[in-house]
Amino acid sequence: MTKTSPRSIGTVAIRWHGHSLDLLDQRLLPGEEHWLTHDGASGVAQSIRDMVVRGAPAIGISAAYGVALAARHAGSGDWKAEIGQAIDELAASRPTAVNLFWALERMKKVFAACGSLAEATDRLAAEAEAIHREDLAANLAMAGHAVAVMEESGTFSVLTHCNTGALATGGYGTALGVIRRLHEEKRLQQVFADETRPWLQGSRLTAWELARDGIPVTLNADGAAAWILARGDVRWVIVGADRITANGDVANKIGTYSLAVLARHHKVGFMVVAPSSTVDMSLASGADIPIEEREGSELRQIRGIPLAPDGVDVFNPVFDVTPASLIDVIVTEQGVVRNPDITGMRKLFGEG
Amino acid sequence: MTKTSPRSIGTVAIRWHGHSLDLLDQRLLPGEEHWLTHDGASGVAQSIRDMVVRGAPAIGISAAYGVALAARHAGSGDWKAEIGQAIDELAASRPTAVNLFWALERMKKVFAACGSLAEATDRLAAEAEAIHREDLAANLAMAGHAVAVMEESGTFSVLTHCNTGALATGGYGTALGVIRRLHEEKRLQQVFADETRPWLQGSRLTAWELARDGIPVTLNADGAAAWILARGDVRWVIVGADRITANGDVANKIGTYSLAVLARHHKVGFMVVAPSSTVDMSLASGADIPIEEREGSELRQIRGIPLAPDGVDVFNPVFDVTPASLIDVIVTEQGVVRNPDITGMRKLFGEG
Repeated sequence: MTKTSPRSIGTVAIRWHGHSLDLLDQRLLPGEEHWLTHDGASGVAQSIRDMVVRGAPAIGISAAYGVALAARHAGSGDWKAEIGQAIDELAASRPTAVNLFWALERMKKVFAACGSLAEATDRLAAEAEAIHREDLAANLAMAGHAVAVMEESGTFSVLTHCNTGALATGGYGTALGVIRRLHEEKRLQQVFADETRPWLQGSRLTAWELARDGIPVTLNADGAAAWILARGDVRWVIVGADRITANGDVANKIGTYSLAVLARHHKVGFMVVAPSSTVDMSLASGADIPIEEREGSELRQIRGIPLAPDGVDVFNPVFDVTPASLIDVIVTEQGVVRNPDITGMRKLFGEG
Repeated sequence: MTKTSPRSIGTVAIRWHGHSLDLLDQRLLPGEEHWLTHDGASGVAQSIRDMVVRGAPAIGISAAYGVALAARHAGSGDWKAEIGQAIDELAASRPTAVNLFWALERMKKVFAACGSLAEATDRLAAEAEAIHREDLAANLAMAGHAVAVMEESGTFSVLTHCNTGALATGGYGTALGVIRRLHEEKRLQQVFADETRPWLQGSRLTAWELARDGIPVTLNADGAAAWILARGDVRWVIVGADRITANGDVANKIGTYSLAVLARHHKVGFMVVAPSSTVDMSLASGADIPIEEREGSELRQIRGIPLAPDGVDVFNPVFDVTPASLIDVIVTEQGVVRNPDITGMRKLFGEG
């Protein structure tokens, strides 16, 4: 078994060393590249909660490594309780993205079959590495499925929201992986990147990642997206997902639903790209997804500088739900669902 | 003739002293209330360009006072040339809002009829004061017309964009004046205020102004507006305008067009509130309006803190155009135009 991260493509935000996990502190980008080293699950849970690491697939991978660390550093006492507690703590770190719970379920299943701490240490590390490796492979597969769906001739522009690249995943990216592939195939004119308030994943992460990789990117205010779509050179809005329900509804970064309405109005394609670990067939529709609300301070200030009056009320949902009816295609590594509904979802993912 | 500003209602951003003009530096709000004193037209033009003062009506009023200052402080030489030059300089300060040009046209007409510098000094000051006073009166009249249009029973919430309050006008406000009136009439549940990137007029100005005046306000990211409309308690989106063309198209702060599409999708009313000085019957449609683009640095950094990689491309249009077909009603002090089109516009404003 390896004791390092899978071979990466492009930027990396997660480094696994077998006994410790380094996470690139995405709160400090693009100004500073600072890594935080974790040797236990609590620290990883804290880093997920505080958004050192973010992006549904990256959260799942980090949590899996967190469980592996819990085993690696378990004391000589009740190791089963220790690891169980670590899993619970990691599960409580963020509520919306299902990849977190999916990854922890995989880890739990392996854990349940382990007879000794030594076995748990080895097998949990191997499982976390597999989750990481499979995520990268899924991203590469999704890019292939996605570009096959796009029938546009010549080059065209796309618009994206939040960050769904190497920083948000095990490498390459989901929506941003598709964009990478379009660039590799010389079909991409340019990427419009929503800055994505309040956390500015678009400015801080997507623009940084694309610029590093030489992919032409133009940053815009979220409120300018409609005006950009009206100009006509954007053919697809491409986004990731934090959870996809049995009817094809999609929870994703706040602002995604807005883009879906705008894309439909402008007859621009709307594509969701996410690994099948994002699909939650146990939920009938988006109405059942818990939507995380974060601190109002995310809008009231930035790095200590006040942007709004002290204590003003803020509504800060971090995700929204896009109904399946506004989505043209959902792309996963298992294949695509066009005009998603419960029939199409079940065909690809089973009854759940 | 008075030598002071008209009696104000609520917050004030423009103070006229006859020989000088104080402008509240809106770039520093909500952190600091700092006034800049101007004794010449160049300084006023600079303050308009740099957004010390912003908001279409406030820009028009400030420019008018700028012309009055040019007369007040003209040298003993060619005073006509000096004042003419001041008018040209003020006209070049911002391109999109037509109130600027409208106010300068009024000033020019008075100026042309003046036989001496003494006469010009008196009459230009009086005309600027009249423009200021009439703007406040127009806002009060618009609030009355607007609330009469709203047939909702009980209390309801509204959503607004940018700042259209006392800070953006001669006092009371346009869209925010209507919201004030709803509050006075106890029909207002609460105001959702888009933070309005990139300049954050919503967080910095609207939230500040409404909080000072005791009107319940909740701040939200621009990308969250669609999700708020989907929840159902917002009955009207109410915005201002920088220019309204003969067919009822409306140029306003970037993000307005997005809201109009979203309001229509959610069957929420979309109301534009602006004085008739905003109407430009000489332009056939919104396609003819010059749209200002500002520095990319407005998205790349905030008060010197980098938000995006150095030098990344930015598309930063400051305004967008909402087609008349997405607007339910345009409210001016002269009356309202429902489902605006060229016929309705001509009925109220003539052939132009």
